[in-house]
Amino acid sequence: MNRHSKLLTDLYELTMLAGYLEQGLADQPAVFDLFFRTNPFEGGYAVFAGLEPALEAVERQTIAPAELEYLAGLGLFQDRFLEFLGALRFRGRISAPPEGTLVFANEPLVTVEGTLAEAQLVETTLLTLLNFQTLVATKAARVCRAAAGAEVIEFGLRRAQGPDGGLSAARAAAIGGCVGTSNVLAGMAYGMPVKGTHAHSWVQAFPDELAAFRAYAEAFPDGTILLVDTYDTLESGIPNAIVVARELRARGHELRGIRIDSGDLAYLSRQARRLLDEAGFPQVRIVASNDLDEHVIESVRHEGGQVDVYGVGTRLVTGAGSGGGALGGVYKLVSIGGQPTLKVTGDAAKTTLPGNKRVFRAVDDHGRFLQDIIGLVEERPAAGEPVFHPINPMQHTRIAAGARLTELREVVMERGHRTRAREGLAAMAERCRAGLAALPEGCTRLINPHLYKVSISVGLNDLKSRLIAKGAH
Amino acid sequence: MNRHSKLLTDLYELTMLAGYLEQGLADQPAVFDLFFRTNPFEGGYAVFAGLEPALEAVERQTIAPAELEYLAGLGLFQDRFLEFLGALRFRGRISAPPEGTLVFANEPLVTVEGTLAEAQLVETTLLTLLNFQTLVATKAARVCRAAAGAEVIEFGLRRAQGPDGGLSAARAAAIGGCVGTSNVLAGMAYGMPVKGTHAHSWVQAFPDELAAFRAYAEAFPDGTILLVDTYDTLESGIPNAIVVARELRARGHELRGIRIDSGDLAYLSRQARRLLDEAGFPQVRIVASNDLDEHVIESVRHEGGQVDVYGVGTRLVTGAGSGGGALGGVYKLVSIGGQPTLKVTGDAAKTTLPGNKRVFRAVDDHGRFLQDIIGLVEERPAAGEPVFHPINPMQHTRIAAGARLTELREVVMERGHRTRAREGLAAMAERCRAGLAALPEGCTRLINPHLYKVSISVGLNDLKSRLIAKGAH
Repeated sequence: MNRHSKLLTDLYELTMLAGYLEQGLADQPAVFDLFFRTNPFEGGYAVFAGLEPALEAVERQTIAPAELEYLAGLGLFQDRFLEFLGALRFRGRISAPPEGTLVFANEPLVTVEGTLAEAQLVETTLLTLLNFQTLVATKAARVCRAAAGAEVIEFGLRRAQGPDGGLSAARAAAIGGCVGTSNVLAGMAYGMPVKGTHAHSWVQAFPDELAAFRAYAEAFPDGTILLVDTYDTLESGIPNAIVVARELRARGHELRGIRIDSGDLAYLSRQARRLLDEAGFPQVRIVASNDLDEHVIESVRHEGGQVDVYGVGTRLVTGAGSGGGALGGVYKLVSIGGQPTLKVTGDAAKTTLPGNKRVFRAVDDHGRFLQDIIGLVEERPAAGEPVFHPINPMQHTRIAAGARLTELREVVMERGHRTRAREGLAAMAERCRAGLAALPEGCTRLINPHLYKVSISVGLNDLKSRLIAKGAH
Repeated sequence: MNRHSKLLTDLYELTMLAGYLEQGLADQPAVFDLFFRTNPFEGGYAVFAGLEPALEAVERQTIAPAELEYLAGLGLFQDRFLEFLGALRFRGRISAPPEGTLVFANEPLVTVEGTLAEAQLVETTLLTLLNFQTLVATKAARVCRAAAGAEVIEFGLRRAQGPDGGLSAARAAAIGGCVGTSNVLAGMAYGMPVKGTHAHSWVQAFPDELAAFRAYAEAFPDGTILLVDTYDTLESGIPNAIVVARELRARGHELRGIRIDSGDLAYLSRQARRLLDEAGFPQVRIVASNDLDEHVIESVRHEGGQVDVYGVGTRLVTGAGSGGGALGGVYKLVSIGGQPTLKVTGDAAKTTLPGNKRVFRAVDDHGRFLQDIIGLVEERPAAGEPVFHPINPMQHTRIAAGARLTELREVVMERGHRTRAREGLAAMAERCRAGLAALPEGCTRLINPHLYKVSISVGLNDLKSRLIAKGAH
């Protein structure tokens, strides 16, 4: 299957394109914003991710003759449109923050400028790739935050939503702070450390647990991590692991670690630590797994758990939690034919911010984030100026005196070609880490976080009010 | 990236393989069962799906020289193992039910028989593909059940977990009962009807809503479905849609439908139905969308909503709901070297069922499902015989007198090759539909369903007790 097919989109994108062509609107200049309306996981931030694969997908969009024939067979489209679609490729501009940047609800993350047709063509591609990776990177950041310095490894391939889901989740997890993955292909593709232990089936394949542990230690004398809960963690698994640790040491090696995959992780990890320390193995690391997420990890830690490495699978790679496993990113038309436009609905929170815009981040002398400001493309907001709540114009404040404003986004594609060199995952992860350290206190709290302020400029607030007053059309 | 790579697996599969090779165990005959321990969504059943892509992935597993070099560079593996892995392919037997079969917790869904090495090699592939598609097919069946005869269309590509997630979700949704998808590539690949309307941006691209509606009707006179909630559903959207419906009729066409994507769907759809009927357009169908799932649809229907078609996206393709967007399928060793084995843990529910087994479904004279029975491969359970609870041996019952037992699974791969012709999605969907109709009353209830009985045979119960008594190893 052609994964870069122009058919990998919703039918309505194609029917709209056909309609625009027929109406002579296909070449109208248009601007779309991609954004989400609430932070994922009821949290205080999101970690922007998925841009590199999204830009690659935009560049590589194609359509094969058989695919055009399939479309023709649907009986919906005229030949003129099919020719147009065959030749259409994105030659516009895309602006976005670099991956790993902390972003917030209602901010335009990605802005697409081009003809109406080409900007519409890339909608589903951008949403599919950015929604998912931003969700998982954010989840990873939350999980790593909860782990408070312990390592977090992504273990989720078998519960991921297909092979793509597993690969892109591993990538996004690295941006959010995971230091390794169990997914070998992801390790190769993205240059991530690959990690693993063994399964219960290894233990079952031998006459007894000790024989199984000895065999694994023989195969990997310098990288042995033993799964100790196949029969009984404290009565059998850890004592047998200690026997093997002694035998390894006698041969000049050290046992790397043990893994606990069931039971009360706080209690068992404390007992394991004590037993290992008493036996003279303080260097043996304790790995914990079993349906972990940020909340379970926080509770293990609060109850004195002695875990060095958390293996997090299912709930990381599916982005489980409030929000139902999806970031609600949307793609909205904000300017058409050079005129700003907005969508007004009964729900004020769903009214869009009109016009081509810039996003600024105000930081203090120490680089700490103060607030973000969305302004019109021609504006340069400055410290001390008034700014407004993005939804409620009655709520206003000022940009802090002395604040330094930097633009959050850059042009990443111009005339259909990428303008920036590719960046490694490590740089993105470092950007995420630095961002989290620069957030106001309370914004990283897992539950009921402090809400970081995102405001709109005087010019944008005026434009929005004017367009709403004249009925938006 | 090579999506059929043997590297698309967890590192521990490879380290275990290397260990088995070193220990001379790689060629031991082994049997693994794939099963889940609780029905997804706290429901009464699951819809088995994903087998065809899983078998294809098993057949196509490969490893490129560069991938072997990458593995060599990890410093974990000896040359002998890399050669072995390069040549290794699955040549064993796989048994499974056909897709669309209703299946239940604790039943072996897929049984893999082969050498320990080859059976281990396919673990992650099978889990990744079967877990996700079974989850989504089950969700789709629940959603379609809630829609009670109204059509359900899969709309989720943009919120799916990557392109693969979107494609395989569309496939699984069709097995569970969805009658179409918005995903054009899925439509082409799987022969599913593709469906769509237009977006809010279409309306915004025109001077006003009526002009936008007229333009769409001009482009698709026989397939127009108008999105009526861009400005105000009842004050503007529906009246404008009726204007266009009249104009279409005057030109010999009929408006196909309207779509409502926000607000109180029960109330708005009732009002829309009334306004359309009064205007002489009873044939215009009402499509509803906006973060729907089985529970929202049930509530819309209970409140008298007049919806003909539900467009379900995010919560369908991510399998949202209790369970965190994943089916907890596992893959457990049940026999090694010809000897049955089990895993015993402190948690009785996690004790596995030992040995190579068969699954039977007992049905009555009308084909209604009575209960499922898991037996040893050499057993042929019959009506009237005693059977036991799979976890608690104190609980026992009898197979109903007069019950007819049929085997749930068939051999779908033998010596590494598929033994069955490919089947279309329509046949799988029909199997699912018939299965739901044959379930005991209450099993399809969305909340607190009646639990369908799955028992184990006398022989299996004896074997399990015996192995537990001797300490499982």
